[in-house]
Amino acid sequence: MNQKASPLLIVGSMAFDDLELPTISAKNVVGGSATYSSYAASVFSPVRLVAVVGEDFSSKDLEALARRGVDLAGLERASGKTFRWAGRYDTNLLSRVTLETQLNVFADFRPKLPRSYVDTPYVLLGNMHPGLQIDVLDQVASPKLVIADTMNFWIEGEPDALAAMLKRIHMLVINEEEARQLSGQHNICKAARDILRRGPKSLIVKRGEYGALLFDADSTFFAPAFPIEDVVDPTGAGDTFAGALAGYLARSGDLSSAGLRRAIMAGSAAASFCVEAVGTAKVARLGLPDISGRLELFRSLMEVKHDTSLVTA
Amino acid sequence: MNQKASPLLIVGSMAFDDLELPTISAKNVVGGSATYSSYAASVFSPVRLVAVVGEDFSSKDLEALARRGVDLAGLERASGKTFRWAGRYDTNLLSRVTLETQLNVFADFRPKLPRSYVDTPYVLLGNMHPGLQIDVLDQVASPKLVIADTMNFWIEGEPDALAAMLKRIHMLVINEEEARQLSGQHNICKAARDILRRGPKSLIVKRGEYGALLFDADSTFFAPAFPIEDVVDPTGAGDTFAGALAGYLARSGDLSSAGLRRAIMAGSAAASFCVEAVGTAKVARLGLPDISGRLELFRSLMEVKHDTSLVTA
Repeated sequence: MNQKASPLLIVGSMAFDDLELPTISAKNVVGGSATYSSYAASVFSPVRLVAVVGEDFSSKDLEALARRGVDLAGLERASGKTFRWAGRYDTNLLSRVTLETQLNVFADFRPKLPRSYVDTPYVLLGNMHPGLQIDVLDQVASPKLVIADTMNFWIEGEPDALAAMLKRIHMLVINEEEARQLSGQHNICKAARDILRRGPKSLIVKRGEYGALLFDADSTFFAPAFPIEDVVDPTGAGDTFAGALAGYLARSGDLSSAGLRRAIMAGSAAASFCVEAVGTAKVARLGLPDISGRLELFRSLMEVKHDTSLVTA
Repeated sequence: MNQKASPLLIVGSMAFDDLELPTISAKNVVGGSATYSSYAASVFSPVRLVAVVGEDFSSKDLEALARRGVDLAGLERASGKTFRWAGRYDTNLLSRVTLETQLNVFADFRPKLPRSYVDTPYVLLGNMHPGLQIDVLDQVASPKLVIADTMNFWIEGEPDALAAMLKRIHMLVINEEEARQLSGQHNICKAARDILRRGPKSLIVKRGEYGALLFDADSTFFAPAFPIEDVVDPTGAGDTFAGALAGYLARSGDLSSAGLRRAIMAGSAAASFCVEAVGTAKVARLGLPDISGRLELFRSLMEVKHDTSLVTA
């Protein structure tokens, strides 16, 4: 671990997922936004986790996180069952339907930071009620960077809390449809400008296999996604992306536009591994050599040797 | 015009389009694949056009092409009416429905090359019956590069002629859904490998606002699309892309992987202008400074200053 890497606070869900994939069905797969994000971030920086699990969550699975440098002081073990989600993907892994959601112990989750987390400089707020995201920020002293995710459920149901949350964060990471819904603008450039007026200094729009766009005050960045031949399970790819992005920034400390671009590439690299196996099987074992190898492939994937002589009259 | 630019043969449709756009309706708009492609290609190289128009096509519109360096020796004026297409776009310009197609003189179109076209080194075959595309190639002496487009109609209805055409071309330029349909593979990497086994040395998969992918034997290139804030009319964007791509290659003569990447960027730049106005209004006036300006913006849109120290253990 790079000695300069700063700690990153990750708050989100931990879950058991039942996944019906085109070729495999898998039950009781350890998942949840905080799990994927923590594994991915731990490649780059120490992680401080705030989440809740039930009595059915095994110590073995927690130890796997701890071995990756994830601080579990903020992990609450509540009486009852862990959050459970069941979903079925279509043949082409393009869309999925939720078959069942049991919030269980997550229903009463009130994130509480241990004293040792208060000074954490980097914060990643996984998708949850925007009021809870604000509660977390009220408990952090003076974060250098706050990144948040959200979803259509809160955009529709909690617009006021969401608006308040947006004023408290530096970066919003959402998918394309959510950006359109939040802004009421279909054109993604217009949607981005609208969202940037609501608080965050930068916006990352995730587009799945089409990559991601970074919008900030000065510039736009068109990030590729790595073309994967054998996508096995897209679950958690977005959380892996956000976790690696946040972890990379906690490691680099470089919040310039160029630094954000590099962080997005690290996020895309991590996400490209995530989808190659069921659940966290690959993300839980990621190392820096994996990331640097895929960044090298990204470089060739994006490389254009410009030649202005050809476009001179 | 660069003295070294080689001539490019373009064969395709010329049409009148009736366009119902979200904010404007426009009738009798000069369109067709060959028209868009010729205007775009003429920015880079001399164009030799083979197409058919009816008696209703004005000399003024033909002169506009001629002034751009488009050779009209291969243009047939047939008795009857010009091909006519009417379509309505949805509010977000994401999809369109065809309201009417009148093939008119295009129904009996049999491309016939003037003797002066026989030695043309670069060939762009617009979307038409694959049998006609082969007929064109039978009339060209020994082209250095043949690029072809096709569509779902021929993939479904003329698989044998299409298979024969694919063996005669160097590069296929189709959209993502067509690549999936032609290959029977949903995953775009697998689809590309399948299509490359059928003949073409390289494949460009157009993804609209998500950019394009270039596949060849050695590498994959992830080309961005320019994020356009005010898309007015997407009609002809794909033909503009292909025309500029082909014209750029006829100008550069560089068919290496690096050369193809630069040509795709030129195609994306031209297409990004096309959608900013109704019909050919912008494409018909494009110049090299427009292209080089947008290529400069593309460079910043794609730029990542890699820093391997951050991903070293």
